Amino acid sequence: MIVRRPAASDRDVVHETLTRCGAFTSEEIRVAIEMFDAGLAGDYALLGIEAEGVLRAYACFGKASLTARSWYLYWICVDPVVQGSGIGQTLQRSVEDCVRHMGGERLVLETSGRPEYERPRRFYERAGFTVHGRIPDFYKPGDDCIIYCKLLGGAA
Amino acid sequence: MIVRRPAASDRDVVHETLTRCGAFTSEEIRVAIEMFDAGLAGDYALLGIEAEGVLRAYACFGKASLTARSWYLYWICVDPVVQGSGIGQTLQRSVEDCVRHMGGERLVLETSGRPEYERPRRFYERAGFTVHGRIPDFYKPGDDCIIYCKLLGGAA
Repeated sequence: MIVRRPAASDRDVVHETLTRCGAFTSEEIRVAIEMFDAGLAGDYALLGIEAEGVLRAYACFGKASLTARSWYLYWICVDPVVQGSGIGQTLQRSVEDCVRHMGGERLVLETSGRPEYERPRRFYERAGFTVHGRIPDFYKPGDDCIIYCKLLGGAA
Repeated sequence: MIVRRPAASDRDVVHETLTRCGAFTSEEIRVAIEMFDAGLAGDYALLGIEAEGVLRAYACFGKASLTARSWYLYWICVDPVVQGSGIGQTLQRSVEDCVRHMGGERLVLETSGRPEYERPRRFYERAGFTVHGRIPDFYKPGDDCIIYCKLLGGAA
């Protein structure tokens, strides 16, 4: 596995992965690709993991404006064909290392409270995130927004 | 009082008002002006209140992406010279009417937990917002992020 910055040449693979995940609506995929493009342009940070020559997971994150040391994890996506291989955990740790190197001390993320999102929620909870808020029906009726935060602590 | 959309010609007055408020750091003012400009360009919604020919208060808000009917209230600023006149409440109600007209059914906002922000927090609480989350030290050490939400209900 190679941890590397995604490039424009990974765009098609990223689109396929987002689609193959099955978890994302077409609007979510559109927004994710918009943010991937903005990340390539330098507006967000991107980090990916390549296995056997193919980008199999990536994350999009960035500093929260008006904060001293808080960062948002906007998106993390792992190709279903490699889920369970530990690639998600490796990517998560790499993102945290990167944020720490950039002076960040906490990661905040928002995710859905829908049953279909139980797997990513458990992933974040195992990674040390705890719930700091919940907005009922935020995404749509019955689809709450759950706000997670993790303190990154000292150097890894 | 006239409720109207701010224009490019209000930019200097908005800058002065943000400065005169005393509540905002120079970085916050820079971001507020960036969002005002983005609002003029159509990226956010802007609404203001003019009194005696001068824009005395404005709000910046917008639909939360990937949500069906949730909107963010990013910024609300009232000139200290007219604070206490009810202009803030009038602006707040106008924003809510506008969001309802655009199909929104909830307003979410984030603000600081610092003692200096007690006045805006009380303003939002009186307007019907309730706390849905808190991220300790989000802005900086000792400066929590407080997440508020208000259900807008039916037509005003």
